[in-house]
Amino acid sequence: MTSSFYPPLRTLMGPGPSDVSPRVLSALARPTIGHLDPLFVDLMDQIKTLLQYAFQTDNELTLPVSAPGSAGMEACFVNLVTPGDTVIVCQNGVFGGRMKENVERCGATAVMVEDNWGEPVGIDKVAAAFDRHPEAKLLAFVHAETSTGVRSDVAALCALAASHGALSIVDAVTSLGGIELLVDAWGADAVYSGTQKCLSCIPGISPVTFSPRAVELIRNRKHKVQSWFLDMQLIMGYWGGSAKRAYHHTAPVNDLYALHEALLMLQEEGLEAAQQRHRRNHEGLVAGLEAMGLAMAVAPEYRLPQLNSVLIPEGVDDAAVRNALLREYDLEIGAGLGALAGKTWRIGLMGFASNERNVLYCLGALDAILARAGAAINSGKAVPAAREVFDRQAGAASA
Amino acid sequence: MTSSFYPPLRTLMGPGPSDVSPRVLSALARPTIGHLDPLFVDLMDQIKTLLQYAFQTDNELTLPVSAPGSAGMEACFVNLVTPGDTVIVCQNGVFGGRMKENVERCGATAVMVEDNWGEPVGIDKVAAAFDRHPEAKLLAFVHAETSTGVRSDVAALCALAASHGALSIVDAVTSLGGIELLVDAWGADAVYSGTQKCLSCIPGISPVTFSPRAVELIRNRKHKVQSWFLDMQLIMGYWGGSAKRAYHHTAPVNDLYALHEALLMLQEEGLEAAQQRHRRNHEGLVAGLEAMGLAMAVAPEYRLPQLNSVLIPEGVDDAAVRNALLREYDLEIGAGLGALAGKTWRIGLMGFASNERNVLYCLGALDAILARAGAAINSGKAVPAAREVFDRQAGAASA
Repeated sequence: MTSSFYPPLRTLMGPGPSDVSPRVLSALARPTIGHLDPLFVDLMDQIKTLLQYAFQTDNELTLPVSAPGSAGMEACFVNLVTPGDTVIVCQNGVFGGRMKENVERCGATAVMVEDNWGEPVGIDKVAAAFDRHPEAKLLAFVHAETSTGVRSDVAALCALAASHGALSIVDAVTSLGGIELLVDAWGADAVYSGTQKCLSCIPGISPVTFSPRAVELIRNRKHKVQSWFLDMQLIMGYWGGSAKRAYHHTAPVNDLYALHEALLMLQEEGLEAAQQRHRRNHEGLVAGLEAMGLAMAVAPEYRLPQLNSVLIPEGVDDAAVRNALLREYDLEIGAGLGALAGKTWRIGLMGFASNERNVLYCLGALDAILARAGAAINSGKAVPAAREVFDRQAGAASA
Repeated sequence: MTSSFYPPLRTLMGPGPSDVSPRVLSALARPTIGHLDPLFVDLMDQIKTLLQYAFQTDNELTLPVSAPGSAGMEACFVNLVTPGDTVIVCQNGVFGGRMKENVERCGATAVMVEDNWGEPVGIDKVAAAFDRHPEAKLLAFVHAETSTGVRSDVAALCALAASHGALSIVDAVTSLGGIELLVDAWGADAVYSGTQKCLSCIPGISPVTFSPRAVELIRNRKHKVQSWFLDMQLIMGYWGGSAKRAYHHTAPVNDLYALHEALLMLQEEGLEAAQQRHRRNHEGLVAGLEAMGLAMAVAPEYRLPQLNSVLIPEGVDDAAVRNALLREYDLEIGAGLGALAGKTWRIGLMGFASNERNVLYCLGALDAILARAGAAINSGKAVPAAREVFDRQAGAASA
């Protein structure tokens, strides 16, 4: 017989969802009100303002799409791409491939710029692609590749697109709230994110923002957006600034309570402070992993502090270790994806989950499991090494 | 300065969202776990089984789309329609028009069958449309029109489609859990619903089910589904029965906790008992409204018990009454939509919100506000009339 579901209290250090703060869960469960209630409309306005802060943008068209990050991605493509367009798509992990699918399903041509998984998007290659394809209307790439843990240079890529008269579509699913993301200063035109990464909100919502240039392109489209649900011209009527909101779909009211609270927490902490916290905890984790004898998969200058790819030592059973972490420690870390499946683990330190306790707990658990499995590691070194980094950071901060 | 949002405790008697049970809100706020966690995968299996019960189907492809009902609608159309197809679309309210948009955005032709708003889909007109369009591949219509409060005959319409070799797409957003819906017995091929109506779950998720014939059509498509996010061939890999789940998107974990609990409550009560409860409370509401001197907008044989359209009396200010209900009574009822804007109110009695207390509270509040506004009603009659119906029902039940 089916009965109520009571999940265990996991520590979520995979590629997302990340641990959700009790404040956010508490907001989530507040009584549902109508999606056209004047109080809800006020809340929508606040969410928009809080998102503008998180994205560092004045873009008027900034809102949460009522569906997961994949739908946010699709919202950017279906609104900006029309059949016959050429779109330059950078692939250095899983999500570039998904962008290609999106472009092709819009009846457009994707010109792929490929880089090795674990490396950033090559600016020179993108420049060469623009030279070969002057007709390209859009450039699409991932800021923080969740599948590999690599950061690419948004500012340089957006500038390159602009210099060729193209607009940019930026996947910021894993970057928003965790590392610097300056939508306006960098000139990004369409940016989508997710709630379940560095915002530490529940999964299911996708914040997006569109520049005035992107909005102009959408307004001047001749070809109807192929998705009714994701048509920004219609969604603007509901989320737009006008006094009279046009009903489009029923907003996910409770999820938006949660998003509001998560964004409020980000604003209270401050974007820069949150980014520094992500960096500090990353430093502790890396020190611990390296003290244990493990090697990071990504070069230091491109590493994401919120998603740490570490190479699985020779002879260690990937799945057995992850399963033991989950079963014995209620601790989730991520498997490698695609080209990196079986080769890396992905240890997330995202949002609320980016804290010293999680770093130390994870290092202790991983050490214990690897030592038991007879892996060639320096057992007992990881936790002290991280502790030392944290102490040094605290000393520097109070000095 | 922005601060945490504490919504008031509204009574939700509009067209949805409806009041969410404390049990469901409590489930919603349980700790988030990973979307690939083995315990979450078990939960997904349970949700599928519970949805099969709610839909009265053995369809293997039965799952909750991770987005609102509008996306569930789109999921049915983009997966079943290919460019150049002819689709017969019935319109007797707002949502038929949205279906037409979906058909056209798939590059297909919508043959419209129009009926007056407030009346059911005319079977003879649909038969005539099939005679004129033997090439029609699909028939799409709404079971319970949320904009008008009218029920159409799903069994007859699905049989008609089948007799012409066409598949059926049925909008069951407002019917699921509130009135009889027998997906297998009636031969419906693709059915979508929403969580925020008679399931009394939070808004944001869309349960869908596809018959084996629909699945065959999807599997044999030559033309890729235009939406990556809603492509059922991909979603099947995540929700399908195989032991190894392929990652597609991050499921809205907490929302699915809530859906699981809401479906469990439906199973505990039993589908027939839930439907009878909707009918009983509807009878009480109608008795009260008529005792007050108001007239229902829909003929008795087509009325939805979960959505009651009532004509606004002459000279009464529509918005002023609804605003007073909201401000003074924390009570939400719905405005008329489209052709019925300003002419009707829509009083929902959906799911958890379908109870005697809500009926009596709403009648009392409406009576007070209309009397104060000087409307020509029989003040003081509504509540006793409803109470009498409930007492008679209770007597009949205990006899």
